[in-house]
Amino acid sequence: MNKYLTSDEWSVIEERFDPGRQEASESIFSIGNGHMGQRANFEEKYSGETLPGSYGAGIYFPDKTRVGWWKNGYPEYFAKVLNSPNWIGIDIQVNGNHLDLAGCKTESFRRVLNMQEGVLSRSFVATMPAGEQIRVEALRFVSMANREIGVIKYSVTALKNLRLTLSPYIDGDVKNKDSNYNEQFWNILETESGKHDGFLLAQTRKLDFRVGFAMKYRCERNGRMIATEPTCVKTPKYTGNVIETELKEGEVATVYKYVAVATSLDYDKNELKAKACERVSAAYQVGFDALLEAHKAKWADIWSHSDIVIQGDVEAQQGIRFNIFHLNQTYTGQDERFNIGPKGFTGEKYGGSTYWDTEAYCIPFFISTAPSRVTRNLLIYRYKHLQKAIENAGKLGFTNGAALYPMVTMNGEECHNEWEITFEEIHRNGAIAFAIFNYIRHTEDEKYLADYGLEVLIGIARFWSQRATFSHDKGKYVVLGVTGPNEYENNVNNNWYTNTIACWCMDYAREALAKVKSAWPKRYAEIVAKTNFACEAETSRWLEICVNMHFPYDEKLKLFLQQEGYMDKEQTLAQDLDVSQRPINQHWSWDRILRSPFIKQADTLQGIYLFEEKYDTEFIKRHFEFYEARTVHESSLSPCIHSILAARIGKIDKAYELYLRTSRLDLDDYNHEVDEGLHITSMAGAWMAIVEGFGGKRVRNGKLFLNPLIHEKWQKYSFRILLKDHSLQVTVTKEYVSLLYKGPEWIVVNVYGDDKKVFPNETLKIERVAAPPPR
Amino acid sequence: MNKYLTSDEWSVIEERFDPGRQEASESIFSIGNGHMGQRANFEEKYSGETLPGSYGAGIYFPDKTRVGWWKNGYPEYFAKVLNSPNWIGIDIQVNGNHLDLAGCKTESFRRVLNMQEGVLSRSFVATMPAGEQIRVEALRFVSMANREIGVIKYSVTALKNLRLTLSPYIDGDVKNKDSNYNEQFWNILETESGKHDGFLLAQTRKLDFRVGFAMKYRCERNGRMIATEPTCVKTPKYTGNVIETELKEGEVATVYKYVAVATSLDYDKNELKAKACERVSAAYQVGFDALLEAHKAKWADIWSHSDIVIQGDVEAQQGIRFNIFHLNQTYTGQDERFNIGPKGFTGEKYGGSTYWDTEAYCIPFFISTAPSRVTRNLLIYRYKHLQKAIENAGKLGFTNGAALYPMVTMNGEECHNEWEITFEEIHRNGAIAFAIFNYIRHTEDEKYLADYGLEVLIGIARFWSQRATFSHDKGKYVVLGVTGPNEYENNVNNNWYTNTIACWCMDYAREALAKVKSAWPKRYAEIVAKTNFACEAETSRWLEICVNMHFPYDEKLKLFLQQEGYMDKEQTLAQDLDVSQRPINQHWSWDRILRSPFIKQADTLQGIYLFEEKYDTEFIKRHFEFYEARTVHESSLSPCIHSILAARIGKIDKAYELYLRTSRLDLDDYNHEVDEGLHITSMAGAWMAIVEGFGGKRVRNGKLFLNPLIHEKWQKYSFRILLKDHSLQVTVTKEYVSLLYKGPEWIVVNVYGDDKKVFPNETLKIERVAAPPPR
Repeated sequence: MNKYLTSDEWSVIEERFDPGRQEASESIFSIGNGHMGQRANFEEKYSGETLPGSYGAGIYFPDKTRVGWWKNGYPEYFAKVLNSPNWIGIDIQVNGNHLDLAGCKTESFRRVLNMQEGVLSRSFVATMPAGEQIRVEALRFVSMANREIGVIKYSVTALKNLRLTLSPYIDGDVKNKDSNYNEQFWNILETESGKHDGFLLAQTRKLDFRVGFAMKYRCERNGRMIATEPTCVKTPKYTGNVIETELKEGEVATVYKYVAVATSLDYDKNELKAKACERVSAAYQVGFDALLEAHKAKWADIWSHSDIVIQGDVEAQQGIRFNIFHLNQTYTGQDERFNIGPKGFTGEKYGGSTYWDTEAYCIPFFISTAPSRVTRNLLIYRYKHLQKAIENAGKLGFTNGAALYPMVTMNGEECHNEWEITFEEIHRNGAIAFAIFNYIRHTEDEKYLADYGLEVLIGIARFWSQRATFSHDKGKYVVLGVTGPNEYENNVNNNWYTNTIACWCMDYAREALAKVKSAWPKRYAEIVAKTNFACEAETSRWLEICVNMHFPYDEKLKLFLQQEGYMDKEQTLAQDLDVSQRPINQHWSWDRILRSPFIKQADTLQGIYLFEEKYDTEFIKRHFEFYEARTVHESSLSPCIHSILAARIGKIDKAYELYLRTSRLDLDDYNHEVDEGLHITSMAGAWMAIVEGFGGKRVRNGKLFLNPLIHEKWQKYSFRILLKDHSLQVTVTKEYVSLLYKGPEWIVVNVYGDDKKVFPNETLKIERVAAPPPR
Repeated sequence: MNKYLTSDEWSVIEERFDPGRQEASESIFSIGNGHMGQRANFEEKYSGETLPGSYGAGIYFPDKTRVGWWKNGYPEYFAKVLNSPNWIGIDIQVNGNHLDLAGCKTESFRRVLNMQEGVLSRSFVATMPAGEQIRVEALRFVSMANREIGVIKYSVTALKNLRLTLSPYIDGDVKNKDSNYNEQFWNILETESGKHDGFLLAQTRKLDFRVGFAMKYRCERNGRMIATEPTCVKTPKYTGNVIETELKEGEVATVYKYVAVATSLDYDKNELKAKACERVSAAYQVGFDALLEAHKAKWADIWSHSDIVIQGDVEAQQGIRFNIFHLNQTYTGQDERFNIGPKGFTGEKYGGSTYWDTEAYCIPFFISTAPSRVTRNLLIYRYKHLQKAIENAGKLGFTNGAALYPMVTMNGEECHNEWEITFEEIHRNGAIAFAIFNYIRHTEDEKYLADYGLEVLIGIARFWSQRATFSHDKGKYVVLGVTGPNEYENNVNNNWYTNTIACWCMDYAREALAKVKSAWPKRYAEIVAKTNFACEAETSRWLEICVNMHFPYDEKLKLFLQQEGYMDKEQTLAQDLDVSQRPINQHWSWDRILRSPFIKQADTLQGIYLFEEKYDTEFIKRHFEFYEARTVHESSLSPCIHSILAARIGKIDKAYELYLRTSRLDLDDYNHEVDEGLHITSMAGAWMAIVEGFGGKRVRNGKLFLNPLIHEKWQKYSFRILLKDHSLQVTVTKEYVSLLYKGPEWIVVNVYGDDKKVFPNETLKIERVAAPPPR
């Protein structure tokens, strides 16, 4: 952990320039709008360590995977998020010398990510090697109101008389840090440079995505447009203008740079130039101030749905807003072709592809903070990939329409970088099924099963029924050769989480079949025909497996074991680890980690979290105490689940500690890796830790349950959730819990075990219970 | 299995040209002399599918490994055997058109590998697209008498009048098929072209090995040197001559090409040109016939030590000679810096590096067929790598001088292509210790322990004592997260073979300590000081572990299990597999193989083979029947061990079937992969299958035991073994066993359980026992 940034309720603030932290800050101060995103790279030249990152949703490169010796079934490519042409560039020269913070004296540096307004700003005073001094103020945003538009305002104030050269540009000569074979991923097809504008057309290799970048800018001195004609610069991969001006001490030059990014996902390839130029001209006409206002208004709207307020704890407040902010920057739910990459638009690693994180973490967030169509879009995304999931299972030897969803995907095909994960982390199939259940229990939209869900559930249940095999030795069904969510194990047998969710999937598929059969018999018949479903034979095998599944259990400890043989490991605890050895993944060899008892992330506890209603508090407590002691939380997905369970069993300090860890994981760089990008998908877990952990929110069959706790550091906290698209605000103080509902008619909410009627627009106050009753 | 080649006792013969089998034949007809080797690529141009392969012992490239995401401890490079500049090239043009068998009509094609003489020859009649006809006869060898010399005789007979162009050359523009990042591995530093000679100096990238290639040739028409001056051709990577001549029908042109290959392993870099030119001039002076005679004489000598004669079964005879021939081509024991790569000089895969194959398979062959210094050299090779093995273990978290020998190495460093094997196949450490024991039991050279062996044994025992951990659950020591010799499992616990050999290593280290302490107390004290050995504490921990090691066991079946949980797998048998699915590694996804019960190679049986004296026949039979039924023998190292055990338990037909499989693995291409190269190290297993299997040869404490069986197809077989460097010939017929010993004084040999005195140079005949008594 790493206290560097200034705590603030609404902003992330960096108050000095530390080149050693530049890449980390580039991640943390990233901006995005669901369609495009940009790391906090500098506009001007920077020769220090930097990870340039400009990303477009849905634009990727199928990079050939790297393996020692190829074996059947290995993924052929790893989809890479692409670092796109640099559209933010504004080169600055002072008396002919480049402004470059790696070679200047920098004072009064301040970088601020205003999360309320979605604006990144930066200011500093630079003293050039030859002694010239300037003050720079830079501000930028990618518009939430117009997803193709990025805007920069960049001002230079002369602190001594000097000659200033400003060069706004777009540069297509970029590469990915993460490239398996050091290949270039882009071709630049066209550049054009006019006076005060420019255009660049880029094409991705292999898949031929096209992206058009159009720029227009206005350059002012002391508020008036500079009359001098700019020089146009155009090379095969670059378009820019150069403007020179003399500034006297105290004078200021400002560039307003507008960029439109139009992609072939949205337009015909031949239209891209026209569309991008049209869009940027429109933005230029509207102008900076009005664009900014529209952008802020959108953010105000987002916050009105999704904000969480915490009083009395700035760190906790900043942490949760940072998470909510980045989630909304990454995914807006407007485009059903997109999903949520683990690093969003903030880095290259994990390729911007879709993981089970979406279903297991992001859906619980969006289902409660966004209109239900957003979650539905995420589910349909998987429905559309069902055929590919069946093909994927086929490659691994499964038949009869068994579906194995990929561990990582862009278009439904498996595209991971590591074979062992691909083959073994089959639990992902479970999360995809669970998300359907979770959507329906929140929305009661059972028709979704008939329309889409059931086909997916059948494919998944078929997979499990083939993947589970019968052990004559045990007289039980077993699931061999898996990796659970805890990726610090490899190729284990009978991972408790996997076996649990496998059975749940088969049970739920049977339930769904029955529901659709009775409510939508015609559709049911269609699905049976389409999937060639042998109703009786298949469901009875599912039942047979579920009834006879093996779950490794330790009789003495009364514990379900993470996997077969887990107790053969040396039972050292996370607290026994030397601090200098953590995170162990940066200090230990991989085999040592695999052999150790240490858990990367919630595994058994992940399963208990999902199916909590099946277990009593003592059971949960026993498992929590055992597994939390062995968990090193080196996955970003880990601490939130532990935090929720800690709250569930009344360990509020532990819940708080783990909440901070999850919500400030990136801000405080717990795992020493934020330079690579932010952990976007796990940010949903920070939200879950408050709402489900402290708030105790559960939804069962469409009904809301609350069991709010409050940590002594907090005076009050408040969150909003959507119940069938109507907002409920929950406020918790040490004395009371209050509910304010904005729906059309009264609802029943269970608070601390008692059903309460909540009427629209009437605040209901309930006395807070210090130790909520066991559930 | 694949019957294509003609059976013959002394030769491998191909009687037609099949372009689809060219790469396979290139492997099978390879020639070598321990210092260099050459696939059976054509001298003339060939535009069909071909894997050019010219290799030099000890010359390699550290190719950066390919992994998805790097983790600590992964091998940094994979050592590649290098395809070197092409020294065999003789380009032929007929009336200006290239001779290229991919574009000609080819008749009377015949390729012969004469194993008795070590000569590759090829003849054919080619009809050119324009109708010209020639007959070609090509013959080549790499000299066993002079390891730096390769010689080619290439004759073209005109079957119609024509103009012939002959271009002998050396070409440095070569690449490896197996290159992780498609890099070139060679720089060519110098080329020179004279009349009738040429020189090329090559340098490997990264490690700067240098190799000088000098060529001289003589070109005759109808037996007389062609007087026309050749044209010299020299480019930055090529040196050659061009000679034109007119041939009338029936006339013949012949090139005698001599090449010397001098490497920086043997000479100062600045001397290479002088040395290579000097060597080639000397060879040219000696001339083709005399070089060939000297080469044949060396082969006659080799065969006089190592030949196995089988009467009545040409296939079996050809198979064993093929194996003995290639082993001797690959390793001569003359140079202690070299070792035996799994593909020798016949292909790129497995990199020509050292694997445990050397200790587990090749040493049993060489210890009985070559002077004992050859085996001693192989042991010292590992002794010299001890420090690197300690460093290697250190990288994985082991301390206190624990040594983990690499899975694959060139210079003592781990250089595998696959992390899972590197980390998990730690059983290799056991084979390295066992080889010391095996050497000593054959030679009674116990001083080897004091001089070298003990230090290695201490390092290995220390590794096991740290790698085994205590399971409180079982109250036993366990070895978690390994892969046994059966590589169709990954990351299993308590692999029986690994646990068995781990204990054996610790026991043997204790025994060796005691021996050295009593016999060489001064040296013992030195070793204790050098290794900082805590005698009492360390050995008592070793003992404690060995006494309390866990071995998975099935009570019902009375079977040691290959690993923890093996019986949870679906117990299908190899005979249940659809033939179209075999080899499964070419048809099944990797995870399906891992989850299956199928065994790639001997694992439990490998351990029983090594420590056979501990088990009675019933025990061996039970385990053989269980595991053989599940073994698919997709490792070349597998069938020989099964064959030996089958003989041991009297299953002579099974032993015979598995003997053929091992000895004709490449000739008949059982596993559909011979195009990649031959399985050199496992060839020793074919020898073992006859000598240890059918012959029942065992050596215990320097004493020989024989229990010969004979298969009904065989009239007689005969092998020679060296006992402390003196030859014993063993001949087995259906009626008798006869022994002829060439040592200085009588020895005792136990035959069928009875000790017999064998006097030098007197044939001892013993009646054969049809069913030898159980041992």
